[in-house]
Amino acid sequence: MESPYLTCGIDLGGTSVRVGLFDADLRMIGSSSMATRVASGPDNAVAEIVDALRKLMNNESVESLLGIGIGSPGPINLRSGVLGPLPNLPGWENYPLRDALAEATDMPVILESDANAAAVAEWKLGAGRDAGLDSLAMMTLGTGVGSGLILNGQVWHGIYGMGGEVGHTVIQPDGDLCGCGSRGCLEMYASAAGLCRLARQVAASSIDTSALGVLISQPSGFDPKGVADLAARGDIAAKQVFVEFGRYLGLGIANLISTLDLPLVIVGGGVATAWSLFAQSMFGALEQHSVVYRLMRPNRLDALESDRTAIVPAKLGSSAGLLGAALLPRLEAGEQNRGLSLSWETHQ
Amino acid sequence: MESPYLTCGIDLGGTSVRVGLFDADLRMIGSSSMATRVASGPDNAVAEIVDALRKLMNNESVESLLGIGIGSPGPINLRSGVLGPLPNLPGWENYPLRDALAEATDMPVILESDANAAAVAEWKLGAGRDAGLDSLAMMTLGTGVGSGLILNGQVWHGIYGMGGEVGHTVIQPDGDLCGCGSRGCLEMYASAAGLCRLARQVAASSIDTSALGVLISQPSGFDPKGVADLAARGDIAAKQVFVEFGRYLGLGIANLISTLDLPLVIVGGGVATAWSLFAQSMFGALEQHSVVYRLMRPNRLDALESDRTAIVPAKLGSSAGLLGAALLPRLEAGEQNRGLSLSWETHQ
Repeated sequence: MESPYLTCGIDLGGTSVRVGLFDADLRMIGSSSMATRVASGPDNAVAEIVDALRKLMNNESVESLLGIGIGSPGPINLRSGVLGPLPNLPGWENYPLRDALAEATDMPVILESDANAAAVAEWKLGAGRDAGLDSLAMMTLGTGVGSGLILNGQVWHGIYGMGGEVGHTVIQPDGDLCGCGSRGCLEMYASAAGLCRLARQVAASSIDTSALGVLISQPSGFDPKGVADLAARGDIAAKQVFVEFGRYLGLGIANLISTLDLPLVIVGGGVATAWSLFAQSMFGALEQHSVVYRLMRPNRLDALESDRTAIVPAKLGSSAGLLGAALLPRLEAGEQNRGLSLSWETHQ
Repeated sequence: MESPYLTCGIDLGGTSVRVGLFDADLRMIGSSSMATRVASGPDNAVAEIVDALRKLMNNESVESLLGIGIGSPGPINLRSGVLGPLPNLPGWENYPLRDALAEATDMPVILESDANAAAVAEWKLGAGRDAGLDSLAMMTLGTGVGSGLILNGQVWHGIYGMGGEVGHTVIQPDGDLCGCGSRGCLEMYASAAGLCRLARQVAASSIDTSALGVLISQPSGFDPKGVADLAARGDIAAKQVFVEFGRYLGLGIANLISTLDLPLVIVGGGVATAWSLFAQSMFGALEQHSVVYRLMRPNRLDALESDRTAIVPAKLGSSAGLLGAALLPRLEAGEQNRGLSLSWETHQ
């Protein structure tokens, strides 16, 4: 009998669920997207996922499926596979997502936070692939700030399975109140919502803010892309927004590097696509706030250029979460070191 | 031939060097302390260490020595074994301490930062021993704030060997300038020097500061113990100093827990002996600043009481660094899981 060669990846979000079926070369055979009907509850969502997977499997035999990986918004208790109080999935708290999906499919299910799943994808297939490192961090700058840590070749789960919430480290103890209940979390500044907040502050305090001021007062609202477009056209106030954004992000990454002395930090998520607008101030903040980063300059402490922590943009875009989820059953099966990487090129 | 059963631990500090010889049960056979003659240079210090070890070995055969472990102030490049710009060992920068000691003794030498050595000792013999955990952090609150991370059963070295400098994570971006060049590092508040600085601030701003005011204006200076003694006698201003100290320490530990979701943080070093004076505000700050810590309350997210990160005082006192150094050759030899723990009791 042939050994199982298909994997299923699931990317669960507050707005939509995506189910993908991948072949032995991690090429996507097919995928299915559906709206997350939050109010219908998690049991219903699991039933819809199972139905979508059954249709994708179509002519494939059940025996050919190696396993299912799913990325979910956090916080999750990854040990028990139970969901926490998820802001975008109200009413789903305490739902045993992993066991429910395993029972409904009679397949092994690996549950990770969406941030961990994205980190796995970028590590093996994206910005971390060619580096061949076994430790790195990935920050996903979306509505909030997600973080995933790979340490010594394994996804870091922590005692509790939350794995780490770098987005909720405090960088301004007297800062604005975060949805989590703390004040001044990194996520309050270095996320899409944080960028919009910074835009309002800059518009209110700048002398020449005509274009930015018009943008932020649009009745339909505005998003980071609108600010980035203004900045790309040379608007000084809009550029300043990204400078401040980069400073906060750099401070958060500085503390992460000082804590863990990591070789690579990958920055992904929607806002990260404006890399050229915030990179300079981010690197400046790293120099300013992290002695560990500063000491890694060549000619300090026996260091080489290659010793310095690299901070790079992510490569896989919004598909990182789904790809990472599909990779999980393979990593679990011990395929980390097998020569699958050539065919993975097709995803870039 | 009997297999080697002795280990040598060395605790190198800016003021003194301690060399200890330990038997198979990790009982200290003998030790030797000497002043660190910084100006005489590191080659001279290595010669003195070798001389001290030779005297301690006395009637033992060279073949009975398993190896040498040494803890040094950081920053160190643990990969290459080369010292960094050490504030207390001026002129020793770029000295290849590990290789120099290995060459002089013809023995395998394991070099760790002093903070990592202390973490190893508390993990295996001290506050972490009975928990049987394979991940934890130890913070050593001395003149500065040292940190050591044990992750998945190994000392975490990081890319660079600095392993992590939690003491230099920034908790007040606009705070006081730290010796490292950053502003508002945890070490500026949660160390002996930080406590003295807080004492001066509280004395300057309090209404009733007679006793604290007298203490801090002594021409001979004052130390944390003086403030602790005042607080133990009920002095309100001195008690307030420790409340603020605990708040900063709690904020630093909150960010560490949010980043890594660790099961245990051990707090050691001289200032940590005033535990009862700062513990309450430290735990309060943890609740306030870390959503990961808050979520670990029982009945949240499928959590048990035992899931919550434990923050506990260290047990081994000032001998942790030396003991940890002596443990290093054994850990290297893969003895982590051997049943040596019974006889280690004698150190408590």
